Amino acid sequence: MGLTLTEKIIKDHLVVGEMVKGTEIGIRIDQTLTQDSTGTMAYMQLEAMEVPRVKTKRSLAYIDHNMLQEGPENMDDHIYIQTVAKKHGVYFSKPGNGICHQVEIERFGVPGQTLLGSDSHTPTGGGIGMLAIGAGGLDVAVAMAGGEYYITMPEVVKVELTGKLRKGVSSKDIILEVLRQCTVKGGINKVFEYTGDGVKTLTVPERATVTNMGAELGATTSVFPSDEMTKAFLEAQGRAGDFTALSADSDAVYDQVVKVDLSTLEPLTACPHSPDKVVKVSEIEGLKVNQVAIGSCTNSSWLDLMKVAAILKGQTVAENVQLVIAPGSKQVLTMLAENGALADLLNAGARILECGCGPCIGMGQAPCTDGVSLRTFNRNFKGRSGTVSADVYLLSPETAAISAVKGVLTNPLGKVELPDIEMPKDFLINDNAVIPPAPEGEKVEVIKGPNIKPFPLAKPLADTVEGKALIVVEDNITTDHIMPSNAKLLPYRSNIPYLADYCLSPCDPEFPQRAKDNHGGFIIGGQNYGQGSSREHAALAPVYLGIKGVITKSFARIHKNNLINNGILPMVFENEADYDKISLEDDLMIDHAREQVNTGKIVLKNKTKNEEYPLLIEVSERQKEMLQAGGLINLMRSKN
Amino acid sequence: MGLTLTEKIIKDHLVVGEMVKGTEIGIRIDQTLTQDSTGTMAYMQLEAMEVPRVKTKRSLAYIDHNMLQEGPENMDDHIYIQTVAKKHGVYFSKPGNGICHQVEIERFGVPGQTLLGSDSHTPTGGGIGMLAIGAGGLDVAVAMAGGEYYITMPEVVKVELTGKLRKGVSSKDIILEVLRQCTVKGGINKVFEYTGDGVKTLTVPERATVTNMGAELGATTSVFPSDEMTKAFLEAQGRAGDFTALSADSDAVYDQVVKVDLSTLEPLTACPHSPDKVVKVSEIEGLKVNQVAIGSCTNSSWLDLMKVAAILKGQTVAENVQLVIAPGSKQVLTMLAENGALADLLNAGARILECGCGPCIGMGQAPCTDGVSLRTFNRNFKGRSGTVSADVYLLSPETAAISAVKGVLTNPLGKVELPDIEMPKDFLINDNAVIPPAPEGEKVEVIKGPNIKPFPLAKPLADTVEGKALIVVEDNITTDHIMPSNAKLLPYRSNIPYLADYCLSPCDPEFPQRAKDNHGGFIIGGQNYGQGSSREHAALAPVYLGIKGVITKSFARIHKNNLINNGILPMVFENEADYDKISLEDDLMIDHAREQVNTGKIVLKNKTKNEEYPLLIEVSERQKEMLQAGGLINLMRSKN
Repeated sequence: MGLTLTEKIIKDHLVVGEMVKGTEIGIRIDQTLTQDSTGTMAYMQLEAMEVPRVKTKRSLAYIDHNMLQEGPENMDDHIYIQTVAKKHGVYFSKPGNGICHQVEIERFGVPGQTLLGSDSHTPTGGGIGMLAIGAGGLDVAVAMAGGEYYITMPEVVKVELTGKLRKGVSSKDIILEVLRQCTVKGGINKVFEYTGDGVKTLTVPERATVTNMGAELGATTSVFPSDEMTKAFLEAQGRAGDFTALSADSDAVYDQVVKVDLSTLEPLTACPHSPDKVVKVSEIEGLKVNQVAIGSCTNSSWLDLMKVAAILKGQTVAENVQLVIAPGSKQVLTMLAENGALADLLNAGARILECGCGPCIGMGQAPCTDGVSLRTFNRNFKGRSGTVSADVYLLSPETAAISAVKGVLTNPLGKVELPDIEMPKDFLINDNAVIPPAPEGEKVEVIKGPNIKPFPLAKPLADTVEGKALIVVEDNITTDHIMPSNAKLLPYRSNIPYLADYCLSPCDPEFPQRAKDNHGGFIIGGQNYGQGSSREHAALAPVYLGIKGVITKSFARIHKNNLINNGILPMVFENEADYDKISLEDDLMIDHAREQVNTGKIVLKNKTKNEEYPLLIEVSERQKEMLQAGGLINLMRSKN
Repeated sequence: MGLTLTEKIIKDHLVVGEMVKGTEIGIRIDQTLTQDSTGTMAYMQLEAMEVPRVKTKRSLAYIDHNMLQEGPENMDDHIYIQTVAKKHGVYFSKPGNGICHQVEIERFGVPGQTLLGSDSHTPTGGGIGMLAIGAGGLDVAVAMAGGEYYITMPEVVKVELTGKLRKGVSSKDIILEVLRQCTVKGGINKVFEYTGDGVKTLTVPERATVTNMGAELGATTSVFPSDEMTKAFLEAQGRAGDFTALSADSDAVYDQVVKVDLSTLEPLTACPHSPDKVVKVSEIEGLKVNQVAIGSCTNSSWLDLMKVAAILKGQTVAENVQLVIAPGSKQVLTMLAENGALADLLNAGARILECGCGPCIGMGQAPCTDGVSLRTFNRNFKGRSGTVSADVYLLSPETAAISAVKGVLTNPLGKVELPDIEMPKDFLINDNAVIPPAPEGEKVEVIKGPNIKPFPLAKPLADTVEGKALIVVEDNITTDHIMPSNAKLLPYRSNIPYLADYCLSPCDPEFPQRAKDNHGGFIIGGQNYGQGSSREHAALAPVYLGIKGVITKSFARIHKNNLINNGILPMVFENEADYDKISLEDDLMIDHAREQVNTGKIVLKNKTKNEEYPLLIEVSERQKEMLQAGGLINLMRSKN
């Protein structure tokens, strides 16, 4: 029986376990990446492990999140990451060099390798045939230290692409269609593997858009084969030597099949406030627009912006629209500066932002009150834009660009004359904003600004775990709810004590104080709790507030791992109906917790209501050990 | 007896008073400009005057301050200004189109005209021979409504430039030299008029750098003649018709002479934390640098950035330096994108920020803790950068660029090979980001977001004015102290109740609450109180807090006018030594205030110490009327 591409890469990297679906496996990590908002914690954790030099093939530290720099905190973080990277053998990409996922694809990603990144959109690397997975910072630190990374051996979904996109239809519409079919919960413990004749019609940046936003499925990752398109891309990046042809066996067996006919696909948009609320653009065409934002790790490639420039050339942005464009990398922006496309964008009235995440993570460009913002990004959770009352629509660069000119949401199909844009034979290669590590790291002084505070550690699991239900939240709570990441808080990613005061505040501003007053307790959640970003801060802030367990209907993958890594019990209701029985401030208790965790089944006592609820704690043996020890760092220390 | 250029322009525009130095005159205003952080208040004041259409030759509303947009407030402000401008006959420059002073020079300024702007760097327009003056928003609103603008008939300082700058020495060094000679207090009620053979060697952008930073002298304004250079510039901007030759009469009489020999001038820098702490770069060369920031209304012209690009071409920014560049306008940035210079900047590793004020006003790019930041800006007040512990040095683009490459402060003289950069024969002209007013304004709906709050009004002057000394501050308190303008507060410029809680907080965080608890009172200040920006908020927040009078050793011009316009008594000690006799929370009283104000002399009773101090209130008859009425708006209303 043949193997899927996913299985082939896993097989090549398997260190622990067997390739049996649903069981835990440990895989070797070839490359790691961090960005600045998760990186400071990851490198502090690496320092705590006392590993002098990273053991990966290549590790990279990018700065792309905190680039507004309204106070000293951000540049202090940049300097900490720059110096700690230099000391420990990590390449450092200076602010301005670009968004981690874009630069990774351009300059460092290698087909067939594994990539672990402390950013949920790390799967972008699947666009060139990497097995690229997002994880918490601690997992990335472990990988840098040479440790394996644990996942549930995934199911593999075959996404069969047939036909060819029409002009005006974009690869963004492919992933929007997959999201429409599968929803944001459809990808848990699955890898989406793209196959079919349609694949070879898609360039690397188009593929990267799809794998990037595959994160919104909740998938482990997404992956494209490495083929002639990949080869051409790597050659044009001066990296022909990094190419290997990779694809699934013709008789590979998949667990699920999703079909997308590219030839009949239409421009789509994800409506507020979820990436899977997908409709055809034509269905809501004419919506008046206040802002159009183009960029983010989803759609900021040279190809994306060349299409936008072609649409905007000779046009003027509508009077009622502010159009902002954040190119994905220094390479992209410089090439656009050299070939005249940037001048076309500027002449049309576009505002050009720095090469970074920018408005996608709420770092600037918040829409007006009640505003309508069309964005080529990957997430439109309520309030993420910086404006709670704004409606954000996710869509393709083509739809965004023509709508910016028209002033209303406009279907580009048939309305836009797009020239053929050929991928460059040679990209502009200049890696002078990537600082290599010092040959002798021990001489490098690590500089840590005053805002960089030690990370909190949980205590080893007690035999009796008790506390109040400190908050009860609904389904689909995102990491943006748990640890908001707006422009006011993102600069404090190195300072958990400060951040903790905002933990879950979008759901209940009094939660942090209540948790402190009660010396910790429990969080009660619904389905898909913790979806969204990989930020470990969504576990670290609860640790700081004394949270001992989170009880939900189900968890998002990365967040669950982050809870376990940091010694918080992630439990699910055996009977979902029990969720409704717990009220705020009920006194909850788990007896013999250390024993019960080992069985995988836990009885939760509600002392207030005098009830008991059966819970499941679905973790591996390795994870049980972590939970007993109070998290991974405590476990490592106890073994030293 | 011949006239100075200043006197000629004033004579052409004189409406009220006689051209007798030291007396108040009223002049007709041809053009006005606002920026967004002062503009919202100015347009609300215009609305309060119920003038349907502005009466100037041209009025312009720029957006250049609040462009980070971390919340809905900023875009809400933009939309308010855009709609109110359209209704009332004002041209609207969209965000991204550039910094007001840069765009004004490029596209709208006219030699010989008067320009009143609600920004303290409005004197930039003196670079093309305008009489361009910074003022509070209310004064600008009055000018838009057709009212005259009142100044003290200024003394005229002749700044005689001889010789020619050597390559590596910049017009920035001229104004730094004038600041070194004259200090930040040297310009009160003076116009600095540039003459001499050296003038004709300087292009318009070089002149504009000088007139721009002349604001730091505390001067009314600065002005260059309008000559062949001006003509060539206007022709290249497609505005030959706007040119008039203007210069002083050969037998003009000046009140003071300052001489600068361009041929022997060296690169200079203003050290922390004042623009007049000027030393030669060579004296402190080698200082390690963390950040270099190029841009601002002082040095963001095409010429400035072409020089920077020439220095950076083929180089790489030092590892320890973050280099950020904010071009002055869409015209500048687009031309650099078209001619390859932008690619040179990017290839060297520069980060390109939006065309706006950006880091100069603390909107992003705060240096690291204890960082050294070299900036081509005009102000280096402590904390203005966003980092209280940072040291900011003001210097030329040439010095900035070479230092960014070397990683340490470097004297460009002799070290930099600069090609001859010729001014363009034709600038790129595309005004599509400037929205003209509606032909029929009454049909335009003005949209006002929820953060835009009504401005406070003082009460008519009481006969007994009493209250505590709520704060006692030292010399040279800037408007950045009185109403801080950092990245956290700037978005709230339309919301005085919110801002008031931060009034004078850098001097004493408890001042706002103390003022509220005591239902207002007095501010006691030293020399040059209120230097810096034109922001009327530094008067409006005190009005909101119930401040009745400010007693100082001396006032900065614009701030004093703002106090009067808003009904706060600006008084100076007749005997400066009395300043030392007032302690915090002393009970102060002015009897028969309405009578005393009219005499220009006031006796202040200190009830706590049982002392009396003679004060002067140096205001015109017109201003007395305003103070009696409780400010200009109240006065206008009382006359209706």
